[in-house]
Amino acid sequence: MGGKINLGPTPLLFPTPVVLVTCKSASSRPNIITIAWTGIVNSQPPMIGISIQPPRYSHDLIRNAGEFGVNVPSRDLLRIVDYCGIVSGRNVDKFKETGLTLMSSEKIKTPLIHECPVNLECVLRHFLHLGMHDLFIGEIVATHVDESAVDSSGQLDSSKIDAVGYFSRPRDYWSLNERIGVHGFTGGHR
Amino acid sequence: MGGKINLGPTPLLFPTPVVLVTCKSASSRPNIITIAWTGIVNSQPPMIGISIQPPRYSHDLIRNAGEFGVNVPSRDLLRIVDYCGIVSGRNVDKFKETGLTLMSSEKIKTPLIHECPVNLECVLRHFLHLGMHDLFIGEIVATHVDESAVDSSGQLDSSKIDAVGYFSRPRDYWSLNERIGVHGFTGGHR
Repeated sequence: MGGKINLGPTPLLFPTPVVLVTCKSASSRPNIITIAWTGIVNSQPPMIGISIQPPRYSHDLIRNAGEFGVNVPSRDLLRIVDYCGIVSGRNVDKFKETGLTLMSSEKIKTPLIHECPVNLECVLRHFLHLGMHDLFIGEIVATHVDESAVDSSGQLDSSKIDAVGYFSRPRDYWSLNERIGVHGFTGGHR
Repeated sequence: MGGKINLGPTPLLFPTPVVLVTCKSASSRPNIITIAWTGIVNSQPPMIGISIQPPRYSHDLIRNAGEFGVNVPSRDLLRIVDYCGIVSGRNVDKFKETGLTLMSSEKIKTPLIHECPVNLECVLRHFLHLGMHDLFIGEIVATHVDESAVDSSGQLDSSKIDAVGYFSRPRDYWSLNERIGVHGFTGGHR
């Protein structure tokens, strides 16, 4: 068997999602921040975590509003995903610059991004200071999916979405290829 | 533009990683649990979160040991990934059943899985009860990578790993296709 190299402490994980988080305080315009430090943290009630550095413009917007949107992009939005992770909403109206379409939420005040095939409305439930980043944990109170990505049973059909994955090191975006199995396919047999 | 369907509160995210977490208390044999509720939560110091339901055998092993390993699998391990998410370590010695090779850690006592191309040694720093799941946040104190997956600059080459992604709904495993961009490729230009 081959050898291993110790890279030292590294935030290395793959594939991570890479999502467009929307946020808005009472007095601000809506903003968008790209986040790869995200994951589902609870099934019931459904909750998602996103981590943001305190100096980022979106950090205080979310803290003040107590809510945020998570918009899961498809591959055709890759340039926008990259752009919204680099530019600050302090200086730029990202909805205006990207031409993305504001979509009203049902349970929160923060708008969502219509072009993303999946949108989650989140209410902030926990906040944890960790170091360079703070962790925001939101309860998912509504989930919107493109009509065209839903199958006849009313559930998401993953094959109808051209998803984007991320390698946190060396920081690159990947497309997905094909479904290689469904959860439980082994039936617990080796 | 097409319409949207509201699925109600759903833990829907993609692609998520799907990892093999190793754990061991002072008196137990080493165990493996498959986790998709995971994500990087902090860059400096690097930290990762994993969420586990309290009744699961691994939950108390990690709580008691105060540490765990995260082993990121490649596609050839897919059957094992699925199997380790279904069977309980209370009844089965998963290392024995799967034939996976124990690999010693450098900074913690919990062993890792040699066959996985990336291995993270994690020390428990935060514990948060959320509902159906508890969130364990571990500081990544060492990162091991297959020699064959490292490029000449000593960093991971993502194209040398056949990664597995997961859709949390409808719960299926996906292979990755190709690198479609590197972080920052837009240079902040639309």
